[in-house]
Amino acid sequence: MRPYRVCVSQPEAHPGPVPIRRPRADQARQVADVLRHQIYDGAYADGLPTEAELAGEFFVSRNTVREALSVLKNEGLIDRGTKVGTHVAVRKYDHGLDALVGLKETFKDYGDVRNEVRAVLHLAAPPAVARKLALEPGAQVVYIERLRYLGELPVSLDLTYLVPDIGEQVIGYPLETNDVFSLIEQVSGQRLGGATFALEAVSADPHSAATLQVPAGSALLMAERLTGLDDGRPVDLEYIRMRGDRITMRGNLVRSDT
Amino acid sequence: MRPYRVCVSQPEAHPGPVPIRRPRADQARQVADVLRHQIYDGAYADGLPTEAELAGEFFVSRNTVREALSVLKNEGLIDRGTKVGTHVAVRKYDHGLDALVGLKETFKDYGDVRNEVRAVLHLAAPPAVARKLALEPGAQVVYIERLRYLGELPVSLDLTYLVPDIGEQVIGYPLETNDVFSLIEQVSGQRLGGATFALEAVSADPHSAATLQVPAGSALLMAERLTGLDDGRPVDLEYIRMRGDRITMRGNLVRSDT
Repeated sequence: MRPYRVCVSQPEAHPGPVPIRRPRADQARQVADVLRHQIYDGAYADGLPTEAELAGEFFVSRNTVREALSVLKNEGLIDRGTKVGTHVAVRKYDHGLDALVGLKETFKDYGDVRNEVRAVLHLAAPPAVARKLALEPGAQVVYIERLRYLGELPVSLDLTYLVPDIGEQVIGYPLETNDVFSLIEQVSGQRLGGATFALEAVSADPHSAATLQVPAGSALLMAERLTGLDDGRPVDLEYIRMRGDRITMRGNLVRSDT
Repeated sequence: MRPYRVCVSQPEAHPGPVPIRRPRADQARQVADVLRHQIYDGAYADGLPTEAELAGEFFVSRNTVREALSVLKNEGLIDRGTKVGTHVAVRKYDHGLDALVGLKETFKDYGDVRNEVRAVLHLAAPPAVARKLALEPGAQVVYIERLRYLGELPVSLDLTYLVPDIGEQVIGYPLETNDVFSLIEQVSGQRLGGATFALEAVSADPHSAATLQVPAGSALLMAERLTGLDDGRPVDLEYIRMRGDRITMRGNLVRSDT
């Protein structure tokens, strides 16, 4: 009935847990993964417990804890100093994956979102863009490129293609301080309906890295998102690069009826 | 009414589009982003168009196309050869973000998912794990570590903590060929209800990179997912690393009532 040799179990005779003999790197990853989300959840605002305390919590050796902390340090998530202990180095921000909201709405509890407008252009839509926006190839679209800041921190680089009738009106408003989503609703007189999105992890090319002020090769969350009005018409195609070290996407899943 | 100088627009007098004068790297990124998703959508199964054709489609110079293709080549997405042209180098696989399904269910149209079971352990739950699973700190949990393959390709490394009553029964079944989700439903006699998840992009540490057979530092999609039964009881806490070069998460968003 049990096809696996349970590698190391707690012997019945021992009341307490026993050390687990697995490759230290495997154990360190396991510890690092739990700690990472503890950090995101704000558990260690005043600093992490000592190595000895963590070794006790995770029932692993101090060397394993040290290796786990080194993984998190290399990710830039924590700082370590011999005198000052281990502290959280960066704060991550939650971006909801359950509803269609702009960044300013999303981050309203964290601080002000402002946009550096890098380009506002009229463009002849390449065939792939035109098809997604249900336009003829070569149709004029409005292209907006924004580097988005939370306070002084660049968090997201957004490349936006808007259908011409909506786009023309949207660029009549201040793009530095408004979400494009709310402007689309304002100028169209319609609510947004829904969006399809594709999300992936990519390494930052040197140019994008420099723009987002991260080291080249840093992990980015990259989204393609096609948003439609309430009547189903697609109006907004975006390519969004978010800093992996700063943004966590959160959501809920429900078991489908299979 | 228009606060932006629209940097370059199509002059009324010109019937066709005119070249756009922006930094070439900005334009190249713009082209690369559209091409990337064309590639994912399977548009170029027989190879990409020539540089000249792409320059025509995107209304940019051939140098800009070349730079865009070089970005995609550095990502490992395409191969380029002087004689053979430009071809798609890797296939990406879609993972749905709308419903709670296991990897085997998710990838059933792509091929067989098999799991290399790296560890099956009884563990005393660290406080953070215990809290999420609504157990007492130090309670025995079942820990399973699997490297998941689609055919011969490693795509995902999953670290799973199961509550003891469910976990004990789950490890009585072959883990190489079953999703843990379906086993949980089988042994509990209950449907899964829902899950909360947090998704981010991280750079692979050397050990995880070696395990997933990607270069160290490669971008990974990393998820923490806490899954409950239909009655709401949390039973399954997972830390999942997916290869960024192989998996795209896809979903739909609906505008919330704000």
